[in-house]
Amino acid sequence: MTAKRQIHLGLFLQGAGHHVSGWRHPKAEAGSENFDLLRRVTQAAEQAKFDMVFLADGLTSGVDAHPSTIARFEPLTLLAALALVTDKIGLAATSSTTYGEPYHTARAFSSIDHLSHGRAAWNIVTTSYARTANNFSKSHPEHDERYAVAEEFVDVVRGLWDSWDDDAFIKDKQSGIYADPNKVHMLDHQGKYYSVKGPLNIPRSPQGHPILIQAGSSGPGQDLAARTADVVFTAQQSLAEAQGFYKSLKSRVEKFGRPADAVAVMPGFLPVIGRTSKEAAEKLAELDQWTELKSAMPLLEERIGHSLADYDPDGPLPDLPISDQLRSRAELLTALARRENLTIRQLALRVAAGRGHHIVLGTPVDVADRMQEWFETRAADGFNVMPPFFPEGLEDFTQLVVPILQERGLFRTEYTGSTLRDHLGLARPALTSQ
Amino acid sequence: MTAKRQIHLGLFLQGAGHHVSGWRHPKAEAGSENFDLLRRVTQAAEQAKFDMVFLADGLTSGVDAHPSTIARFEPLTLLAALALVTDKIGLAATSSTTYGEPYHTARAFSSIDHLSHGRAAWNIVTTSYARTANNFSKSHPEHDERYAVAEEFVDVVRGLWDSWDDDAFIKDKQSGIYADPNKVHMLDHQGKYYSVKGPLNIPRSPQGHPILIQAGSSGPGQDLAARTADVVFTAQQSLAEAQGFYKSLKSRVEKFGRPADAVAVMPGFLPVIGRTSKEAAEKLAELDQWTELKSAMPLLEERIGHSLADYDPDGPLPDLPISDQLRSRAELLTALARRENLTIRQLALRVAAGRGHHIVLGTPVDVADRMQEWFETRAADGFNVMPPFFPEGLEDFTQLVVPILQERGLFRTEYTGSTLRDHLGLARPALTSQ
Repeated sequence: MTAKRQIHLGLFLQGAGHHVSGWRHPKAEAGSENFDLLRRVTQAAEQAKFDMVFLADGLTSGVDAHPSTIARFEPLTLLAALALVTDKIGLAATSSTTYGEPYHTARAFSSIDHLSHGRAAWNIVTTSYARTANNFSKSHPEHDERYAVAEEFVDVVRGLWDSWDDDAFIKDKQSGIYADPNKVHMLDHQGKYYSVKGPLNIPRSPQGHPILIQAGSSGPGQDLAARTADVVFTAQQSLAEAQGFYKSLKSRVEKFGRPADAVAVMPGFLPVIGRTSKEAAEKLAELDQWTELKSAMPLLEERIGHSLADYDPDGPLPDLPISDQLRSRAELLTALARRENLTIRQLALRVAAGRGHHIVLGTPVDVADRMQEWFETRAADGFNVMPPFFPEGLEDFTQLVVPILQERGLFRTEYTGSTLRDHLGLARPALTSQ
Repeated sequence: MTAKRQIHLGLFLQGAGHHVSGWRHPKAEAGSENFDLLRRVTQAAEQAKFDMVFLADGLTSGVDAHPSTIARFEPLTLLAALALVTDKIGLAATSSTTYGEPYHTARAFSSIDHLSHGRAAWNIVTTSYARTANNFSKSHPEHDERYAVAEEFVDVVRGLWDSWDDDAFIKDKQSGIYADPNKVHMLDHQGKYYSVKGPLNIPRSPQGHPILIQAGSSGPGQDLAARTADVVFTAQQSLAEAQGFYKSLKSRVEKFGRPADAVAVMPGFLPVIGRTSKEAAEKLAELDQWTELKSAMPLLEERIGHSLADYDPDGPLPDLPISDQLRSRAELLTALARRENLTIRQLALRVAAGRGHHIVLGTPVDVADRMQEWFETRAADGFNVMPPFFPEGLEDFTQLVVPILQERGLFRTEYTGSTLRDHLGLARPALTSQ
């Protein structure tokens, strides 16, 4: 970490914006398959010195889904393309351990790390939604098994990334030695879920290991993050909840023998910015008015894991058993409904706006104040910024909020390094096998 | 197909060149993880109006392997990056049906087709080498089962590509309809190996279906190609063999109810070009002299499927049972050894030079003549050009041979379309589900 602690910023990139109705705003462009928009937005985040741009992912689709998830680029090919039109910003994509293969995953992220000269990050997810299994000729494992698989999967990937010493590919024309046979390491992994011999068929990448991100908030999710991750994404509704999560996560990090600042905690943060608080509130209301209950309800129902069709939308959220698969997000939403006394309709609208992430309404100073408060009171080391729609929602943030954070010394004014590891203040790892 | 039949050209891109010792040439650059070289070479092929650039792949590594395969970029991320630095040339990558998942494969190639505005191609392979299984926690299926899986895999991928009508994503801000619910098609595939519900989470791509390439030469391989492929890559040693394969393949194409010219047959073609035939022969001898028997033998042994350690390298190739896994390549090499009376050493050197593909030595006119002969006598519809090393091996071809082909009216002087389908003269497919 650098001497002075500073905020880390990610841009959470979604083709059609984060607010479910964001794309309906007159100034919104929808970029699910519009690379040009995604390129411009990513370059704007780089111009504003963000640490990284982040791509979520899912492996299903349907017309009732959030418009940003009905259709989207495959994240790894999109990252590779974005690597070619940027120079400094980190490039993070989600890839599932439940529906992936360690050899493929290790290889693709290493490849992106090479293509981007050290800017790749893998957001490790285990995939919550059981319906995903319908596209993969298998059944969906239970929550705890998914995390057991993920623990082993991540170890295999890290092992494969250490297949070759950094200086293994000597390519000596005179002797004819292309790769030094003394500098290759067989993984020979034999575990409960995977047996992978290695070596990986790509040289060790510029960052040694691409950055690891984890976003599970359950106990097993926090443990996986605490043991392996460099960055944690999380959904937190209130300052107190965020502080609690931060403390819990950091203490787990230390329990695994790592320094607390080895992991940056970055909650999602959806800013709606106006010249006045009133204007900001009106902006959100404008977006909310376009949200029909029938498009908001499926988003709530998939997070709660129950149909709510038989309940009065203007009544309270009933007490429902929470599925093991969806525990952390479902608990967060139930707590929110109870704390703020929300009806089903109000909760559904809230989910449609921010999917459980923290929404902050106000002037640029209000937004900067909130970020500073969360950062300084150890609720966050940074934020995954979720513009309600693109590109204007991001421009409001980069042009109006970022300069305030920079003036206050809370955020960089220039990149001081060229890799994502540099931006996060993390050292390049030595070979684990040595 | 266009009115006048013309040669199709692919550039077979290998980081360290095709000749096993190509990288040792004083002018060679090795590009396994050197994107800049691969970019320059691909742009040179585009400048020369090639139909496509092609990436082979494998899922293992080891210091004894061909230097172009010890380390390489992951092909799909590399293609996405190449899409950003080219405008017209087709972009083909290999992906295995035995070690892949239809949903992932369908999605990645669709994504590249979007990123490249219609230039993606998938080279379907079933993966010959059983050692691959060691990296994937499973056992390697037998040859015929691999092809049975591949047949179903390809159908699932094509079905997923037809998940959405071309005009499904209406994004109507007024009505709030993002994707038209009448224009989505569930695949609901339930087969022997796969059950995949769909829909795919990406819009139908510019080419409708990315181009399909197949390179298996066995009976089941030819059947898969004849039923599904747009392009067939193949290794053919002699004109007569190539004509026999061409005829066999085209008659299978017609047996599946498709016009013979729906599939372009493109043998691999390794040109070694000199100002005189003697200079060309010296160039190859110069490369061959750098090839040690101990680096050539593993390449022969892996294609034959037997250790040859107990045999005299200066004696004939013994009669050995041919493994089902490797049948077509092993038979081709055995026939070559018998026909030309090659010793084990000579055969190993030949494999080290071109891995069983046709090597043509001579002046630019000699090379153009050979291509014209193969093309006009129906041994080939085009060629997958395999420079012995990069970048000079390609420059010799693009600067000296391509102009001769163009003068003779055998090869385009300008791209007339912008998609790979356009270059191949193939129509965009309608939705199969309609």
